[in-house]
Amino acid sequence: MTNPPRPNGVRHGARGQARREEIVRAAMEVIAERGYRGASLAAVAEKVGLTQQGLLHYFPSKEDLLIAVLTMRDEWDSGERVIGEEPMTIAQAVGVVEANAHRSAIVRTFSALLGESVTEDHPAGPYFRDRYRLVRRDMAITLRRRWGDRLPSGLTPEEAAPLLVAIMDGLQFQWLHEPEGVDMPASFRAFLRLIDPEAIA
Amino acid sequence: MTNPPRPNGVRHGARGQARREEIVRAAMEVIAERGYRGASLAAVAEKVGLTQQGLLHYFPSKEDLLIAVLTMRDEWDSGERVIGEEPMTIAQAVGVVEANAHRSAIVRTFSALLGESVTEDHPAGPYFRDRYRLVRRDMAITLRRRWGDRLPSGLTPEEAAPLLVAIMDGLQFQWLHEPEGVDMPASFRAFLRLIDPEAIA
Repeated sequence: MTNPPRPNGVRHGARGQARREEIVRAAMEVIAERGYRGASLAAVAEKVGLTQQGLLHYFPSKEDLLIAVLTMRDEWDSGERVIGEEPMTIAQAVGVVEANAHRSAIVRTFSALLGESVTEDHPAGPYFRDRYRLVRRDMAITLRRRWGDRLPSGLTPEEAAPLLVAIMDGLQFQWLHEPEGVDMPASFRAFLRLIDPEAIA
Repeated sequence: MTNPPRPNGVRHGARGQARREEIVRAAMEVIAERGYRGASLAAVAEKVGLTQQGLLHYFPSKEDLLIAVLTMRDEWDSGERVIGEEPMTIAQAVGVVEANAHRSAIVRTFSALLGESVTEDHPAGPYFRDRYRLVRRDMAITLRRRWGDRLPSGLTPEEAAPLLVAIMDGLQFQWLHEPEGVDMPASFRAFLRLIDPEAIA
């Protein structure tokens, strides 16, 4: 007995989804090479063997593609969690930094976009502003769950949260520029020892 | 008795220097708006009322102008110090962060360039790599002079130096995206309290 043929629409849907992912990955590569403003839909289309017209069938505009890039990156980072709903644990944050140390391509794409996002009317500007707000709030919750209203160092969770976020972003730039000069996971652990000398070996 | 007329060359030299500075400031503005790759010499020339040909008289290429932008920014930060020769003190680092909180334009230019610098073959790439190496080394010297081979938190100066640099860079992105949501000098002082709970009020 063979499985019944799946209706065309579904097959197209699954194929379409795979194709969309392939396009988003190609867009990440082009952004890592040239930044978002320097990226062209033509360059993305060429990487996946589509015409620019064919690409627009999947993503009607360059901004739509940018949103898809940022969304995919968030999904990779958060695993099963939904950002803004369930804060990560400290151990999960360490896990993200360790994973990042093995995926310079996506770290490069994200860092380039973060830099560009502070320029005028950049389409990623609102994304980063909202994301920072959520991530600072989540980190404060994470820190409070672990250590209560005062960290061993005397800081409040609200004081430490923007520092935790700044360390993750800031280390990435140093590491991208000199991978052999900066051990990103070790540096992040050193920062956690500042927060609590006892907690992390 | 009147002063003898100064030779043309000298007057041109002084005027030329003022003009060069005016051009560099215009370039900073254009980079803050569009990034370096998105910046055109035509846009810079227009801001200072020069033709593009006239601008090339002062800066023969876009890269020359970029170098001048980065150099001027370093001069503003370092005051009388020469980066790589005399490390700043902790108090001077606090002073830089406080000054930055009142000059978002140059912070924006620098942050945009830092982001772009991780993309392929970016002309600011070597500058940032070398600068980070120097600044980490300088910061380790600063920390050792102040606290010796072990900070009160137990970290070595070499462990804390990249964190200090990462905090300064990382906070700038959060602050640029939401100035009312992040108090950059207060956050930097909170980080210093992590290093030494006694040292900073």
